[in-house]
Amino acid sequence: MTTSAVLLLSCPDRRGLVAAVADFVAGHGGNVLHADQHIDVVGDRPWFFQRVEFSLDGMDLPRAELEPTFRRDVADRLDMAATLRFSDERTPTAILASRQPHCLTDLLMRWYANELSADVRVVVSNHPDHAELCAALGIPYVHEPVDDGSGGKPVQEERVLATLAEHGVELVVMARYMQILSPSFIAAYPNRIINIHHSFLPAFVGANPYRQAHDRGVKLIGATAHYATDDLDEGPIIEQETARVNHRDDVARLTRAGRDLETIVLARAVRAHLEHRVLVHGRKTVVF
Amino acid sequence: MTTSAVLLLSCPDRRGLVAAVADFVAGHGGNVLHADQHIDVVGDRPWFFQRVEFSLDGMDLPRAELEPTFRRDVADRLDMAATLRFSDERTPTAILASRQPHCLTDLLMRWYANELSADVRVVVSNHPDHAELCAALGIPYVHEPVDDGSGGKPVQEERVLATLAEHGVELVVMARYMQILSPSFIAAYPNRIINIHHSFLPAFVGANPYRQAHDRGVKLIGATAHYATDDLDEGPIIEQETARVNHRDDVARLTRAGRDLETIVLARAVRAHLEHRVLVHGRKTVVF
Amino acid sequence: MTTSAVLLLSCPDRRGLVAAVADFVAGHGGNVLHADQHIDVVGDRPWFFQRVEFSLDGMDLPRAELEPTFRRDVADRLDMAATLRFSDERTPTAILASRQPHCLTDLLMRWYANELSADVRVVVSNHPDHAELCAALGIPYVHEPVDDGSGGKPVQEERVLATLAEHGVELVVMARYMQILSPSFIAAYPNRIINIHHSFLPAFVGANPYRQAHDRGVKLIGATAHYATDDLDEGPIIEQETARVNHRDDVARLTRAGRDLETIVLARAVRAHLEHRVLVHGRKTVVF
Amino acid sequence: MTTSAVLLLSCPDRRGLVAAVADFVAGHGGNVLHADQHIDVVGDRPWFFQRVEFSLDGMDLPRAELEPTFRRDVADRLDMAATLRFSDERTPTAILASRQPHCLTDLLMRWYANELSADVRVVVSNHPDHAELCAALGIPYVHEPVDDGSGGKPVQEERVLATLAEHGVELVVMARYMQILSPSFIAAYPNRIINIHHSFLPAFVGANPYRQAHDRGVKLIGATAHYATDDLDEGPIIEQETARVNHRDDVARLTRAGRDLETIVLARAVRAHLEHRVLVHGRKTVVF
Repeated sequence: MTTSAVLLLSCPDRRGLVAAVADFVAGHGGNVLHADQHIDVVGDRPWFFQRVEFSLDGMDLPRAELEPTFRRDVADRLDMAATLRFSDERTPTAILASRQPHCLTDLLMRWYANELSADVRVVVSNHPDHAELCAALGIPYVHEPVDDGSGGKPVQEERVLATLAEHGVELVVMARYMQILSPSFIAAYPNRIINIHHSFLPAFVGANPYRQAHDRGVKLIGATAHYATDDLDEGPIIEQETARVNHRDDVARLTRAGRDLETIVLARAVRAHLEHRVLVHGRKTVVF
Repeated sequence: MTTSAVLLLSCPDRRGLVAAVADFVAGHGGNVLHADQHIDVVGDRPWFFQRVEFSLDGMDLPRAELEPTFRRDVADRLDMAATLRFSDERTPTAILASRQPHCLTDLLMRWYANELSADVRVVVSNHPDHAELCAALGIPYVHEPVDDGSGGKPVQEERVLATLAEHGVELVVMARYMQILSPSFIAAYPNRIINIHHSFLPAFVGANPYRQAHDRGVKLIGATAHYATDDLDEGPIIEQETARVNHRDDVARLTRAGRDLETIVLARAVRAHLEHRVLVHGRKTVVF
Repeated sequence: MTTSAVLLLSCPDRRGLVAAVADFVAGHGGNVLHADQHIDVVGDRPWFFQRVEFSLDGMDLPRAELEPTFRRDVADRLDMAATLRFSDERTPTAILASRQPHCLTDLLMRWYANELSADVRVVVSNHPDHAELCAALGIPYVHEPVDDGSGGKPVQEERVLATLAEHGVELVVMARYMQILSPSFIAAYPNRIINIHHSFLPAFVGANPYRQAHDRGVKLIGATAHYATDDLDEGPIIEQETARVNHRDDVARLTRAGRDLETIVLARAVRAHLEHRVLVHGRKTVVF
Repeated sequence: MTTSAVLLLSCPDRRGLVAAVADFVAGHGGNVLHADQHIDVVGDRPWFFQRVEFSLDGMDLPRAELEPTFRRDVADRLDMAATLRFSDERTPTAILASRQPHCLTDLLMRWYANELSADVRVVVSNHPDHAELCAALGIPYVHEPVDDGSGGKPVQEERVLATLAEHGVELVVMARYMQILSPSFIAAYPNRIINIHHSFLPAFVGANPYRQAHDRGVKLIGATAHYATDDLDEGPIIEQETARVNHRDDVARLTRAGRDLETIVLARAVRAHLEHRVLVHGRKTVVF
């Protein structure tokens, strides 16, 4: 597979945006492989989003000059927010986990199978449970308990942030990490912390969603992956899925059935982020 | 197809219930075709639910004596609530509709295709729109406007109730009927009024669920069929389904995509009710 | 909603195609609303497909000149096959049906609810069953029996073709029409006859797919909408869907469950065609 | 959770079977927790299937005497095939794998998370790739290459069979094991070898199903878990699932999307087998 580049763009809509981007690529000898665009007409003014993937073969610009040239010649002129990523890059990633293994192990095994363009640099957990598995896979496992008598949660968060910084992490995945992150933690990774909530949000926010679902007698359960924000369970949704349940499913069975949902929904969201397919707009996402 | 009978049973759980029912059927020469049971262990005491379908061929009891004999010999002795229905019976049914045709026409066409064991006796609407279609199908269409200067909604409800009574209706289907029924109306048909709500309840209760869904940026929309109760959108859920949407779907497209969901969810719930597969327990259902 | 235009394009891939189309629209004062493209790299040479929807507001070309101008200035120069359609046009459509009503009535009710941009001009059937329903809807119903002693199937097909021509039909939908069309019939409407097959093709080609599915013990049944070609069940697939079944489902229950699948799959395929979202390439489709 | 027992039964249908089993359980002081039954009316004579789960609390029989007593008092008298399993037993299981890790690692992680009532005793592979991972998990990994110059495939199969016997294996899971098993191998584990095929069978039997699917232009891909039999891809189907694809998915992307399908379908089938929910009847299964 040859290397390609992906541009993710957003700006106020105006005429000629598609043509301007297409001309840039064609003018430098590139060839558009995929292009997706969306115009959001909600709110004060329409907003333009685009993901353009193009082949680097035959282009007259070296890799390092592509993004600055695009900014100078196109993005700045059109008030575009633009980011560029190459298909052969791997995003430095940390996974936060607690006791429950399913989301953690699913991501680790996808990494093991080379399915994700992530460089999993560290697993951080408030429990020691999965240290041995990570060691076997050659991934550093940092145990950061919350109640260790040395300052409680704020101090623990400081240590976790230091660990992430030390490993150069750019994406944080909360794989059923059973701690609520503080606003200052979240501010350190804006739209770069992905959380999985075990319900079809906005149904059943907060604690024990499977118990809430059972009490309400729903016929489907769900899972939601979203970017973490200060408002718990209110962040921009990246991916959701549901699965059929019935009256036979008590809370234990709902929880078990939900694990497969949580796993697949989180994996899809992480993959979308890693493939540079997600743009955040207000409290919503565009997933190309 | 030979005629079969369906028993729907519920009672406090105790040992030997399955055997007692099976013995009754076998003892009178019947043969169990299907049997589903469920024990709900939530709450103060476990509760037993069963649906038993059995062939009438070779039974030593005439149809009319089946239910009284079962009550006397089994149900009364075991504190069972029991209802019996024959597979060749059609439930007298009314459909309440407003302007939007999709749920109404879907049910009418299933009736036309002989898919439902319902005897659709009357369509009642607060709008005149679909009178001609119903006339062509030979189904009485009663137009009962709400604001007709002759007493408003309470009076309109009285007239609707009179119409239902006149037609001997036993099941009422709200096919996107855009009026909230009063508690006294609902009390006239307990667990026999099926409503369709155009969201995955309990998400997006109340008005404009597609707008709410769009504002929240969900990746799935849903529909919920439930028995109408005094608490709006809180009745026992019979059936739910979701469908995938994305950032391209504005409110108009969500609404359009939702029509197919509403239609299929309502049809499945109505069919389950007509096939005597639904038991209500508290605010939840058992759907066998 | 303002009127928009949709261009459907295909041609051998080369650099600059996206830019050429975007420049045409922008150069005439139009604004691209949606653009989807695809490059198929299978076979001897890569092939380019695009669907571009753009607003007519502010364009400097009258409607009638849009397509010829695009051909002259863009399509001919780049060897593009191009078709253009306006969002306010309704495609003249015929429905072919037999006894089973579900696909026919579903399409009729979508037309009745104004969901389809189709002008349903005539229903043709080899059975008289649904004449009354169509009459009530104001749609001509032409009964063309096959075995009427006046020439058999070839003659019947001639009469059907004459009926379609008389009504200016551009799209033919086989709504469980239980006759195999001859090659000459199909040649009259290339890629404009949509058929529904009641299996997940290529599984269970030919007769009685639900019986075949039951014999094989599959856990899902399917339905497939495709353009009719000379090779039965081999035409380009437009849409497919599956639904879960289990050991309790005998052939009669599979058939019943399958009706909902057939209905929804055919409706989606017809809608995709009517919205100018389908391009045929060899024996496959691109559905934007 | 208290221990329960599961009876899996099949026999020619006759009146009174449900009552006989229910009476046995009730008569010995047990309580039926779940009971599912099915009557297959296809073929020469109707056939009865049942799965009964009952609580051991309060029963007047010790565990070891349950099955022989049931055989003597019920099964033998009624020509029933009967097997009994206790909910706290773990089935000795082997996984056969090749290079592709996804199905293997998914099963291993479910075992690691304690989701499966399997005792994974050994992983056998014709490749050395995953030895290290299994070692880290404490599971023996036996590398049995096919082409090792010492007799080829028959000899390799002998060695694999010896390994399975040595570990007391009762269930064999082919987790994308890329070798066709010989009839004599299969005969050693009748209806106890589960294979995953990467298509929606019977579509795309044989090699390269994703390429076949791409060539045909299907809109869904599938996966099928079945018991291995002498007829390749023809064994009784336990579970199937499909996922939506489109024209953008080349063979590589179909293959990638298919991995998640294969993984989940195989896991569901293995879980159904381990929970004693599968009965084989001819070339079909009843999955309760």
